[in-house]
Amino acid sequence: MPKHEHVSISVIRRLPRYYRFLGDLMKLGFSRISSQELSQRMGLTASQIRQDLNCFGGFGQQGYGYNVDMLHSELGSIMGTNMSYPVIIVGAGNIGRALAMNINFGATGFRLSAIFDNSPSVIGTTISGLTVMDVSELENYCRENRPKVAVLTIPRAAAPSVVSSLVDLGVKGFWNFSHYDFSVKYKEKGIIVENVHLGDSLMTLCYLIKSAGEE
Amino acid sequence: MPKHEHVSISVIRRLPRYYRFLGDLMKLGFSRISSQELSQRMGLTASQIRQDLNCFGGFGQQGYGYNVDMLHSELGSIMGTNMSYPVIIVGAGNIGRALAMNINFGATGFRLSAIFDNSPSVIGTTISGLTVMDVSELENYCRENRPKVAVLTIPRAAAPSVVSSLVDLGVKGFWNFSHYDFSVKYKEKGIIVENVHLGDSLMTLCYLIKSAGEE
Repeated sequence: MPKHEHVSISVIRRLPRYYRFLGDLMKLGFSRISSQELSQRMGLTASQIRQDLNCFGGFGQQGYGYNVDMLHSELGSIMGTNMSYPVIIVGAGNIGRALAMNINFGATGFRLSAIFDNSPSVIGTTISGLTVMDVSELENYCRENRPKVAVLTIPRAAAPSVVSSLVDLGVKGFWNFSHYDFSVKYKEKGIIVENVHLGDSLMTLCYLIKSAGEE
Repeated sequence: MPKHEHVSISVIRRLPRYYRFLGDLMKLGFSRISSQELSQRMGLTASQIRQDLNCFGGFGQQGYGYNVDMLHSELGSIMGTNMSYPVIIVGAGNIGRALAMNINFGATGFRLSAIFDNSPSVIGTTISGLTVMDVSELENYCRENRPKVAVLTIPRAAAPSVVSSLVDLGVKGFWNFSHYDFSVKYKEKGIIVENVHLGDSLMTLCYLIKSAGEE
């Protein structure tokens, strides 16, 4: 697999979207598609699509377009959808439970292996086939099972100490719903953080609706 | 309030982040901050911050920086955090429930006014102080209460007919968790859609972890 060192984060963030659209096209029975057709469906310019995909080697053929199955599979392996990285969820509150039950971790390169919480009313319950473990078992669990990624669905105030422990225990990446801001020291250690701020998305919607109303 | 017609969506998407950081600074007791300090905390360049904020009129003073309270309040009113637009949640499954319980709609310009589902086991239960209504009551509810926005937390297959009804009933915006792709006709009607694809975020994390491992 070639390395893609100079690919910008904006291009990387569009890959899952291409992958989704191609998956939909496969379900609809398409076997090939031109960059023009793909651009109309995705609301991007054809030249943007060509540029994006060229970052990873050209996949299209002049006059033919893209082979849908092949491009879907190539993008999947570029993103690592087959990696099956073990992931744990820390925090089995509303958001943690909803993610455990609704996110298809297997299809996105992960394997949900454990869920932790500190509340006696939640510990021992079953979510998505996993028994919620006491957060006091986190350290032993990580030493034995070496999870690669943690989903943080704990209150912000609880995050600093949990993050610090998890990094010491070898966790390399965080899917962070806690609103905790990872400091530069973690970046310097090579820790990867994907922050999700649902409130930011909702505020953007508010701005757009307000602006539309002012026209 | 001046209109901001030529502001790019990337700048708009950074506003909630500025707003969050400024809110944090207020809690920490900061009354003013230079664009340099703000840039270090946010991981953006000082010039980027000045450019972004200049889109809405300059808020800083040479040699003083930004007044934290004032900038926070100005950004809030630009985004419409005080608008209190009525919003309904359609789909009281795991994600719908988690959003109802965890998102601070009031702080982001909205007011959660009703929740709908089609499952007899969920209808009549209480979530976040609201009794879940039967989706068959949706039309009457909308005629009487004119919700501005709908959160779509229903399966993708159910979305087309629900969206079509809601638009006819005057809903102007959607916070869309359903993976349904709104067609161009809705855009032409001025419908605003904010799509949330949590899976895309997770796949981005997978790519970044995989890439880091290949270094």
